[in-house]
Amino acid sequence: MSKNLTTREEDYSKWYNELVVKADLAENSGVRGCMVIKPYGYAIWEKMQAELDRMFKETGHQNAYFPLFVPKSMFEAEEKNAEGFAKECAIVTHYRLKNDPDKPGKLMVDPNAKLEEELIVRPTSEAIIWSTYKGWVQSYRDLPLLINQWANVVRWEMRTRLFLRTAEFLWQEGHTAHATKKEAIEESEKMMNVYADFVQNFMAIPVVKGLKTETERFAGAEETYCIEALMQDGKALQAGTSHFLGQNFAKAFDVKFANAEGKQEYVWGTSWGVSTRLMGALVMTHSDDKGLVLPPNLAPIQVVIVPIYKSEEQLQAISAAVASVSAALRKLGVSVKYDDRTTQKPGFKFAEWELKGVPVRIAVGPKDLENGTFEVARRDNLSKEVVVADGIENYIANLLSQIQADLFANALSYRENHITEVNSFEEFKSVLEGKGGFVSAHWDGTAVTEEKIKELTKATIRCIPLDRVEEAGSCVFTGNPSVGRVFFAKAY
Amino acid sequence: MSKNLTTREEDYSKWYNELVVKADLAENSGVRGCMVIKPYGYAIWEKMQAELDRMFKETGHQNAYFPLFVPKSMFEAEEKNAEGFAKECAIVTHYRLKNDPDKPGKLMVDPNAKLEEELIVRPTSEAIIWSTYKGWVQSYRDLPLLINQWANVVRWEMRTRLFLRTAEFLWQEGHTAHATKKEAIEESEKMMNVYADFVQNFMAIPVVKGLKTETERFAGAEETYCIEALMQDGKALQAGTSHFLGQNFAKAFDVKFANAEGKQEYVWGTSWGVSTRLMGALVMTHSDDKGLVLPPNLAPIQVVIVPIYKSEEQLQAISAAVASVSAALRKLGVSVKYDDRTTQKPGFKFAEWELKGVPVRIAVGPKDLENGTFEVARRDNLSKEVVVADGIENYIANLLSQIQADLFANALSYRENHITEVNSFEEFKSVLEGKGGFVSAHWDGTAVTEEKIKELTKATIRCIPLDRVEEAGSCVFTGNPSVGRVFFAKAY
Repeated sequence: MSKNLTTREEDYSKWYNELVVKADLAENSGVRGCMVIKPYGYAIWEKMQAELDRMFKETGHQNAYFPLFVPKSMFEAEEKNAEGFAKECAIVTHYRLKNDPDKPGKLMVDPNAKLEEELIVRPTSEAIIWSTYKGWVQSYRDLPLLINQWANVVRWEMRTRLFLRTAEFLWQEGHTAHATKKEAIEESEKMMNVYADFVQNFMAIPVVKGLKTETERFAGAEETYCIEALMQDGKALQAGTSHFLGQNFAKAFDVKFANAEGKQEYVWGTSWGVSTRLMGALVMTHSDDKGLVLPPNLAPIQVVIVPIYKSEEQLQAISAAVASVSAALRKLGVSVKYDDRTTQKPGFKFAEWELKGVPVRIAVGPKDLENGTFEVARRDNLSKEVVVADGIENYIANLLSQIQADLFANALSYRENHITEVNSFEEFKSVLEGKGGFVSAHWDGTAVTEEKIKELTKATIRCIPLDRVEEAGSCVFTGNPSVGRVFFAKAY
Repeated sequence: MSKNLTTREEDYSKWYNELVVKADLAENSGVRGCMVIKPYGYAIWEKMQAELDRMFKETGHQNAYFPLFVPKSMFEAEEKNAEGFAKECAIVTHYRLKNDPDKPGKLMVDPNAKLEEELIVRPTSEAIIWSTYKGWVQSYRDLPLLINQWANVVRWEMRTRLFLRTAEFLWQEGHTAHATKKEAIEESEKMMNVYADFVQNFMAIPVVKGLKTETERFAGAEETYCIEALMQDGKALQAGTSHFLGQNFAKAFDVKFANAEGKQEYVWGTSWGVSTRLMGALVMTHSDDKGLVLPPNLAPIQVVIVPIYKSEEQLQAISAAVASVSAALRKLGVSVKYDDRTTQKPGFKFAEWELKGVPVRIAVGPKDLENGTFEVARRDNLSKEVVVADGIENYIANLLSQIQADLFANALSYRENHITEVNSFEEFKSVLEGKGGFVSAHWDGTAVTEEKIKELTKATIRCIPLDRVEEAGSCVFTGNPSVGRVFFAKAY
């Protein structure tokens, strides 16, 4: 397999698929639509998990674990939710295999082991969790319930792509229950803000916060808050959603509480989630034709050190110098790898670590030892500098912060250049076909228009931005009155 | 629901079930055989996970993630493994529900959405992982592969009990591949030792290390190493297993590598796992009739502080004193909860935190403030002491270490008193029916005898202890020659 990636200009989609595999993030498995997340990719996901988990706990949430399976009748209880997810689910119907009498060595489903009621592999856990909450909530004193679950879910997608759309994926799903509508709405907004904070400040990916239209809303929610990111090819990617569920699930599962006056009321709910899809967003926001570019906060290896030598003696001297720099860096919490493989040349190593997106590379040869310097290269902009060895650990620590900030600033500047206000449908189409990005346009508020525009352009309403200005206008498609602009885009 | 537990003497099994639910560890769900792990129980599991994960990484392993589903044909490839697990698996046969035309609002399995090949919900992941390893291993340079996965698995158990035996459970499964038999055996032994270290030093549960007999071995393994613990009712519990897989899976999935001489060889494998079953072991090793007893290493709350007061003024003075103690404790890494609920009396709080197994309780009233003391109570032995407030944080930190050590020492002493050497089948039966525990007896090495003894007494061979002395003897059942004693017990 050649190390050369297809370039983004040649074929963005091919570039993405190749990069995910070659950088050892993930690969397709022998199971249709399911991926294997490889150790390097999983290490990045673990860093995301750790930070999100910390943020969830800091905002008062606890983790728990609920069953993988949802009995069909339980799944049916919240009608919209069931309809929204029933079309793409894996269904367990039997619980035993037996030896196939006609084919020695082969197994067959035992027809005598048919389940009385089919089990759905959870596509999302509202049903199973709200059926449990019924037993946990009696009085207002039991509220709020602030619970999160890290889990795998399955949606039977027909067209799958590594991280972006897979039959099985990993995610977290928060499910909270509250005494009042106000509190539940506040929770939905709070978690959308936690997601935005995480994605922007930890992943260096700028997002637009907004509301989904009714068409794009989560099945069973009253309101869906979302954060939308923009990829390098001008397509949007939904990076996280937070749903205000109203009393829909409480009513479907009869979850009531006695308020302070002893009156029975239905509980108010929220749910919110982000998934391994974020790995796709990470790749498509920062990476380039040489490979992955990782923000230092998420890089499993932040600094790689490559020795350049001709003799064993030189290598020993370099290794000694590297040992003390590595120790100093580790003391500052920086993760370092010393790549002293003797089986590969420096050029090969440089290319490999560029492919894998290590933020900083230090090269050191005999000349450097003489001069008391190291060569420091940034992965993000490929610049190099010669840096004095003494105190280099502080230089590197600052550089890592700088890289994190620069990655965000660059992505933000790209995003800002890709929000285009349009006032006619001609303009609308030409921006979409041209540079892409978010097209900010007036819309008459109807699902019919939304659908029509989608048919004609493949663009959907990504969100009604939370910070939009009230502005009277006329719909870009129908000319009917509008109260403000919404963001359209083609999307992943 | 009354707070009083059934006592262990009344009904050990009922005591266990009640305690798991009342202490908020877990409960049964609306899905047959599947449990809900509640936040308090999950917090304990998270502590186990964090420590095990640290130990795995320290021994060179990386995490990854493989698919939930295993296609039937892949499952069949390693014959023994398939046979061993085929009888208790959940099978996905369809991928869509549709509206039931005969029952408005109800869904039915869409007969047009039948999978071409059935998918097994993983009961264990050797098949899917070895089918992946085929693509990862070409040369000896690609070895060893040292990989672990945190995941859920499903085994269709007919009789389930919270944590001990559930249809779905959480676990970690390590899967490694090596160039030589020797290395693979060393890895299996190393991971058995990691488990023993964790269970003994972190969970305070003594274990016997040993080998399984052929009958009890993992389906598809050449050798199964295990750690066996002893519960308070004299029954054994398998706490972890580590399998030397030989080349069985490499052959089934054609995983070969070119050795240093360029010759193709099959890879050698291991797998090893521990699960949420350890939660059951934790409960049944340390807890008592008042509730849970948690080793400080695993306690989500290590110290609870309860104020005793009559006036708001007293409460304020107490709270001020508590704030500084709490801060000092947290600085030492001790987790503290101040239970200043005004809705509950101290006696209620004491009972609740005893039920939940918080290792240390501090009570403080106006008298204590005057005297500059606190009342410190240990959960494990229920002893109380009055301790000078000044510097109490160091006293508590030491006390927590002491409790951890005492719990292990007590469990060890119980276990030592429950290993009984017997030399006749009469003795064998009378020990089993009497105090229980491990019965150390000679066995003739045949599966027939093993089976016969199991039929007659319900005792199985828990393990051939690794440290057993070679000792000529005659089988306790047949009188045939034996080369050493093995441990029998009734088991969970």
